[in-house]
Amino acid sequence: MLEELKQKVYDANMMLPKYGLVTFTWGNVSGIDREKSLVVIKPSGVDYDKLKPEHMVVVDLNTGRIIDGNLKPSSDTATHLELYKAFKGIGGVVHTHSSYATSWAQAGRAIRAYGTTHADYFYGDIPCTRALTKMEIENDYELNTGKVIIETFENKDPEAIPGVLVFNHAPFSWGLDPAEAVHNAVVLEEVAKMAFRCEIINHDITRMGKYILDKHYHRKHGKSAYYGQNN
Amino acid sequence: MLEELKQKVYDANMMLPKYGLVTFTWGNVSGIDREKSLVVIKPSGVDYDKLKPEHMVVVDLNTGRIIDGNLKPSSDTATHLELYKAFKGIGGVVHTHSSYATSWAQAGRAIRAYGTTHADYFYGDIPCTRALTKMEIENDYELNTGKVIIETFENKDPEAIPGVLVFNHAPFSWGLDPAEAVHNAVVLEEVAKMAFRCEIINHDITRMGKYILDKHYHRKHGKSAYYGQNN
Amino acid sequence: MLEELKQKVYDANMMLPKYGLVTFTWGNVSGIDREKSLVVIKPSGVDYDKLKPEHMVVVDLNTGRIIDGNLKPSSDTATHLELYKAFKGIGGVVHTHSSYATSWAQAGRAIRAYGTTHADYFYGDIPCTRALTKMEIENDYELNTGKVIIETFENKDPEAIPGVLVFNHAPFSWGLDPAEAVHNAVVLEEVAKMAFRCEIINHDITRMGKYILDKHYHRKHGKSAYYGQNN
Amino acid sequence: MLEELKQKVYDANMMLPKYGLVTFTWGNVSGIDREKSLVVIKPSGVDYDKLKPEHMVVVDLNTGRIIDGNLKPSSDTATHLELYKAFKGIGGVVHTHSSYATSWAQAGRAIRAYGTTHADYFYGDIPCTRALTKMEIENDYELNTGKVIIETFENKDPEAIPGVLVFNHAPFSWGLDPAEAVHNAVVLEEVAKMAFRCEIINHDITRMGKYILDKHYHRKHGKSAYYGQNN
Repeated sequence: MLEELKQKVYDANMMLPKYGLVTFTWGNVSGIDREKSLVVIKPSGVDYDKLKPEHMVVVDLNTGRIIDGNLKPSSDTATHLELYKAFKGIGGVVHTHSSYATSWAQAGRAIRAYGTTHADYFYGDIPCTRALTKMEIENDYELNTGKVIIETFENKDPEAIPGVLVFNHAPFSWGLDPAEAVHNAVVLEEVAKMAFRCEIINHDITRMGKYILDKHYHRKHGKSAYYGQNN
Repeated sequence: MLEELKQKVYDANMMLPKYGLVTFTWGNVSGIDREKSLVVIKPSGVDYDKLKPEHMVVVDLNTGRIIDGNLKPSSDTATHLELYKAFKGIGGVVHTHSSYATSWAQAGRAIRAYGTTHADYFYGDIPCTRALTKMEIENDYELNTGKVIIETFENKDPEAIPGVLVFNHAPFSWGLDPAEAVHNAVVLEEVAKMAFRCEIINHDITRMGKYILDKHYHRKHGKSAYYGQNN
Repeated sequence: MLEELKQKVYDANMMLPKYGLVTFTWGNVSGIDREKSLVVIKPSGVDYDKLKPEHMVVVDLNTGRIIDGNLKPSSDTATHLELYKAFKGIGGVVHTHSSYATSWAQAGRAIRAYGTTHADYFYGDIPCTRALTKMEIENDYELNTGKVIIETFENKDPEAIPGVLVFNHAPFSWGLDPAEAVHNAVVLEEVAKMAFRCEIINHDITRMGKYILDKHYHRKHGKSAYYGQNN
Repeated sequence: MLEELKQKVYDANMMLPKYGLVTFTWGNVSGIDREKSLVVIKPSGVDYDKLKPEHMVVVDLNTGRIIDGNLKPSSDTATHLELYKAFKGIGGVVHTHSSYATSWAQAGRAIRAYGTTHADYFYGDIPCTRALTKMEIENDYELNTGKVIIETFENKDPEAIPGVLVFNHAPFSWGLDPAEAVHNAVVLEEVAKMAFRCEIINHDITRMGKYILDKHYHRKHGKSAYYGQNN
């Protein structure tokens, strides 16, 4: 069942240790089949070096019920489902505790757009959510994590800013498919690292100008893109 | 003698270079057989790439005497024994000079709980001991290192906070068995790294809220745990 | 066509992942055949692990037109061409988003000459350009990036300071040939890393003295050089 | 000639890339035959991956003349010779531009003894030299680098503090033989890294106490040492 998507989700999960984004079993990637309303996700707490494509779990987008698979899905599954339901254009979601991005999340600060590496992928600041309330934590925590991310994007385009920091927790990112979602997670970590150093180098730093942000984002995205071989 | 435990202790020791926690011979792991009151520990100053399971030394929990083995046990053996005697529930102990955790120990500061990576393993701040006195240093130094750790945990649960920073020195951590003790040492280093960056990113940062700390700790530990395949 | 130069440019491009200067496809190296006024450059957005010497694109120095190759040249080609036209003595150009140098570029600060590692390769501060104007960004952005670099070197010798930081963007470096250009990119990243730490270690730090700067630069460059086997 | 020492010096040189202490050809190790007053040292500017034991150059301790070898010795040879002449107990010398130690040297600050990793190898602060004068730089620079190191150790024991930072430049370290000299270079880099972080974690940090410094140094050195298998 959904063998092709399972393979893609598996491959994307295996990119996490390859790019140094995870320690132990921290982190998970999912992908969605929009026509069937089914989500394929990593099982909970399984070591990456024991992970196989057939371990991927299939859950129903709307009910969260397991449709296929012998293992329990990631404990963060409810967050992934919320994001798929609200952000209709995305095909893959990633959660990691990657070191620099998680430090920003713990610190409770958005990552400002300081340079073109950021602008090539994120069209503006990468926001940080508000803290969840006692109620939101104690009941349906993972579902509410999804909701607070969606609330954070009320006036933002999740396709133009494909990532977020969850306060006191860690980053989530997404993309058109599982591989792109991981790609964005790698960029988010790199951008978090450079913003960290950049604020130390220049205490009076301000955000990059709007024109250069526009230029770099649109050089890689949308109708006027001209980066790469396919534009 | 205790071949199975020797293998486990050896395997756990070899995880230290694998996870980048040691330089040269710095670091040691032990494991205990509670029924026999015997502790198996790494020999002192032996290179990791020459280490073999049969090099592990067996010492008596109560007297510290060598029961089996041709090499001298780790110079930190007395500290390990103190911890096993006071913390009845633990089965493995680790000492490293891992870089970030050691920096916090040298700086003499506890690592505050800032985020969920911390809360997933440590139920509150990771404390730093007081400095040892002249007397404690000059006589039975390693034994007193154990005693000052135990003193630091007077009002804390060592199973809920499985690690400590020894002032001016470096971290110790522990777990149900040698492998879990090393697992906690890896987390401690990661948490130390993120807390370091986090305080730079936000100078006014405060500890994470109690509800989210509770949620994440109990998601992985105790009766209501639901992370992983066995809960 | 230009097979030898294609191989050199390919080899130099492959040094970027080897030395950890690039993530994904970020970064490009070119080389020039001065007699034929032809520049060989990496294609745009091609993965390093799929890159082959025959993928290199040949463009005309003056017109920018593709003379040989089936792929689109790097989107930064116009910047490379401007540099070759203005800096007559250089034979290779590199652009990366290497992590520390890019942090300085984002922060908008020149890297001051603090020590002999710097002085061995860069005869003085590594400058940072001014920001490009709206006009310069919206029309012929890559060409104007070249122009603002050249403007930055109005009173500087590009052969004695073979690198620059482009404000809000990232570094460019160059050399007598593609390999030397990458060599200088590696040094630039290392120097950026050390200057970053150095200013934290000593807030009151000042530039290194002129005599030691002179000594180290001239120990490796020019008529009185005596470092290495060929001087 | 001196084949055994050449092999040892070669092996020690090859430890530099293994432990991440050098970029390109930066760094050199030498060893001395005290009876013959001959020093074996790495040739100048040769890549580590092309280096062979037979490339090592033999020079006379007193005259600096090449006694054996087809290549030019390291440009830092005169510094090595000065150290061997002044510090009679040492058998190996190392120079690197290792990243953290070099940052401290550039910043012009001694590395204070903050913890036991430091105390296990260096019995007190690792000093930083004064700046060389114009005269000292312009004439016999490398010899004067040796002299300013020796001046820095006027009231210190070079065997108890086997390393130094040369102002605006980089570290030198030494030991009983070439391998121990490199071992100390690795520790110096690690200690430099931890001191850097430690001062950020606690702005009011003070040096470690004398008793713990004494304890750790003497646990590994001298008559009362008990660390390792040979004490």
